[in-house]
Amino acid sequence: MSVSKDAQQVLASFKDGVCDDCAHLSIVVLGASGDLAKKKIYPVLWSLFKHDLIDKANTMFAGYARSKLSHDDLVGRIKPFLKKPFGKDSESFAKLSDHLGKLFTEDQIYRIDHYLGKEMVQNLILLRFSNRILSPAWHRDHIACVTITMKEPFGTKGRGGYFDEFGIIRDVMQNHLLQILTLVAMEKPVSQASDDIRDEKVKVLKAIRPLKIDDVVLGQYVASNIPGNEESTMGYKDDKGVPKDSKTPTFATAVFYINNERWDGVPFIVKCGKALNEKKAEVRIQFKDQPADIFGQTVRNELVIRVQPDEAVYLKMNVKSPGMSFEMEQTDLDLSYNKRFEGVRLPDAYERLVLEVIRGSALHFVRTDELEEAWRIFTPLLHDIDAGKVEPIPYKFGSRGPEESDELVKKLGYKYTEYNWQPKN
Amino acid sequence: MSVSKDAQQVLASFKDGVCDDCAHLSIVVLGASGDLAKKKIYPVLWSLFKHDLIDKANTMFAGYARSKLSHDDLVGRIKPFLKKPFGKDSESFAKLSDHLGKLFTEDQIYRIDHYLGKEMVQNLILLRFSNRILSPAWHRDHIACVTITMKEPFGTKGRGGYFDEFGIIRDVMQNHLLQILTLVAMEKPVSQASDDIRDEKVKVLKAIRPLKIDDVVLGQYVASNIPGNEESTMGYKDDKGVPKDSKTPTFATAVFYINNERWDGVPFIVKCGKALNEKKAEVRIQFKDQPADIFGQTVRNELVIRVQPDEAVYLKMNVKSPGMSFEMEQTDLDLSYNKRFEGVRLPDAYERLVLEVIRGSALHFVRTDELEEAWRIFTPLLHDIDAGKVEPIPYKFGSRGPEESDELVKKLGYKYTEYNWQPKN
Repeated sequence: MSVSKDAQQVLASFKDGVCDDCAHLSIVVLGASGDLAKKKIYPVLWSLFKHDLIDKANTMFAGYARSKLSHDDLVGRIKPFLKKPFGKDSESFAKLSDHLGKLFTEDQIYRIDHYLGKEMVQNLILLRFSNRILSPAWHRDHIACVTITMKEPFGTKGRGGYFDEFGIIRDVMQNHLLQILTLVAMEKPVSQASDDIRDEKVKVLKAIRPLKIDDVVLGQYVASNIPGNEESTMGYKDDKGVPKDSKTPTFATAVFYINNERWDGVPFIVKCGKALNEKKAEVRIQFKDQPADIFGQTVRNELVIRVQPDEAVYLKMNVKSPGMSFEMEQTDLDLSYNKRFEGVRLPDAYERLVLEVIRGSALHFVRTDELEEAWRIFTPLLHDIDAGKVEPIPYKFGSRGPEESDELVKKLGYKYTEYNWQPKN
Repeated sequence: MSVSKDAQQVLASFKDGVCDDCAHLSIVVLGASGDLAKKKIYPVLWSLFKHDLIDKANTMFAGYARSKLSHDDLVGRIKPFLKKPFGKDSESFAKLSDHLGKLFTEDQIYRIDHYLGKEMVQNLILLRFSNRILSPAWHRDHIACVTITMKEPFGTKGRGGYFDEFGIIRDVMQNHLLQILTLVAMEKPVSQASDDIRDEKVKVLKAIRPLKIDDVVLGQYVASNIPGNEESTMGYKDDKGVPKDSKTPTFATAVFYINNERWDGVPFIVKCGKALNEKKAEVRIQFKDQPADIFGQTVRNELVIRVQPDEAVYLKMNVKSPGMSFEMEQTDLDLSYNKRFEGVRLPDAYERLVLEVIRGSALHFVRTDELEEAWRIFTPLLHDIDAGKVEPIPYKFGSRGPEESDELVKKLGYKYTEYNWQPKN
């Protein structure tokens, strides 16, 4: 992985372009002809421009791409050649990081993990450290387990050839979901300054030992036949470009333990997959059983932070079944964003993050040492997977993933109770 | 206060009438011609009958009243002569209690406090002891204060002559609101058996010292002129039958301290009044400030249990202001019964309680020692008030009550923040 000489020159000439007061701002898009630029970067720049969030008079955009393209060529064209995932393990990360380190200082680098631009992920720090009622319960004494889930209802959609080089762990777990884990688990930072917060996130990562094969359940989806869902008739290996003997996981459940005073023994169960039964991303804090339950029917409390779709915070609780009965019933205290903050625009994650770069706020960007620790945790397992040492378990398109995952989660102490929370619209 | 010889005979002949399996049930209404019977008892018996909650074939109703009345006379007549408040201080309570004690054993007596029949009051025990997330926070370490409020928007409505003998403290504080206080403060009972729960309630009361004049702010409403509200043009002393020099309070705020390990130093602020700005009854647990607030704008969490109108539980919390901002915003996790349990019938308090008597469940009835302790706490203050030693502060019909009450609440550490929770319909 290296940046071409041309690119280095472009980078060098613009490295002071982002300045504190935005009086003069230059935005350089590397990989200007690529898919990500087209789908994410340009719409965001346009949105910032349109909403007067950047100074129109003093802002310059420049694009760089290896392809020879005129301005007109670029417009309306899809160029899916660019590869934006730099690094795939500790070693390749170190190489790239050293290289960048020669060009920029740490405070000039804004590494985007777009999950850090999502409303509910940004909300996590405020929720945790501004609500006294949560403070005493946020502890191994009271929490049974934490699950962090990201489910996609679609497969690789013809991009399997690209996906196969990375797999689901590099795609969403080592970055997005691990970032969420650090925000859920971190100690209170000294202040809300970017580095104070990132210092605490790094401390969480340092307290996690590298994953082993026994810590994970890996899966790979196979065809099913969901009416009206054409993609479901194709398994992962039926996608073009995916080798017929691929062992790349499209599903993974992993358990992490954080070896510190607050979390010792509490499993953090992180689950993600493609071609599953629903679309959602959420954090679920499951509290321990009520000790000496005098009612004999108490179920566990859960605090759920729903990242997508339909942003929400809800707290599953027990109440008296309303009416004449003195039985118990599960319900929840709910904060559905659609309903409560009706009409409030929740900007796209990239839109937020680009604005934060422009404003010079590094809070929601990933620091070198965070990534270093993240790769340390995942690299041994990823090398085992890359070497074909782990056989992924087949699961049907549209299912919950392999049954072995549910069994692992159960074994780790998560107690499932039937409950159907519905987004409020 | 005594029960006539005739009544004793009726009571004696029926005292075994309430049996465990309801195979043969006799219900005797004492004071059958009275206002309370007409307004509360008969509608409830009818409702139980109508909803098949009592065995129609084997249930007998009998009424006893000192008035000579035929069945026909009774129907449709209002007889507001009966006085059902027995006892007005420790001494008169002891007299009545001793008298009843000769006729019945403790387990045959079901003393109704109709607040114990309200959905959200009955819910308190389940909420408290089946939700692990609340357990660690329910403690002096985390709670700043507890307020228990009951506000009525109307005055004495022509019944001031009757009210004047008792005043607001005997009317709602010494019974309803103190009962709520014990349910909020009690330790976890050994089981949900009636006496295990009542044992714990008594322990709370035993840990409260008698109220002194300095612990209270008393008020008496005077006329104002609210458009469309004719009653508001009359002060309390303008009501017929109220002596022109009456010092009977129509408003009271009192502070209680519970001298035990859990609550030492936490003020329980109990507030009630007639002719106020709104109708509501609620419990509000205000949590302490967030220590070392890194955001500089954190406001206190509150858990509110709304007893009436519009039953609800909601938790005032801080979240990130949704959208581009990283500022903070107050919101709440909400459980509005109207909305969540739409269509579920919440029976009238009396209806519940009469059914509980029929079923032989004493959980929601007040035991002798509870009342004894309640009178111990209030009697010295009530005697001071009865002796005219306390001048109630005038407040306008439709106001929040005397300003001195707000000042006391503020002095006790309650922090007010503007927040407008709305019932969901």
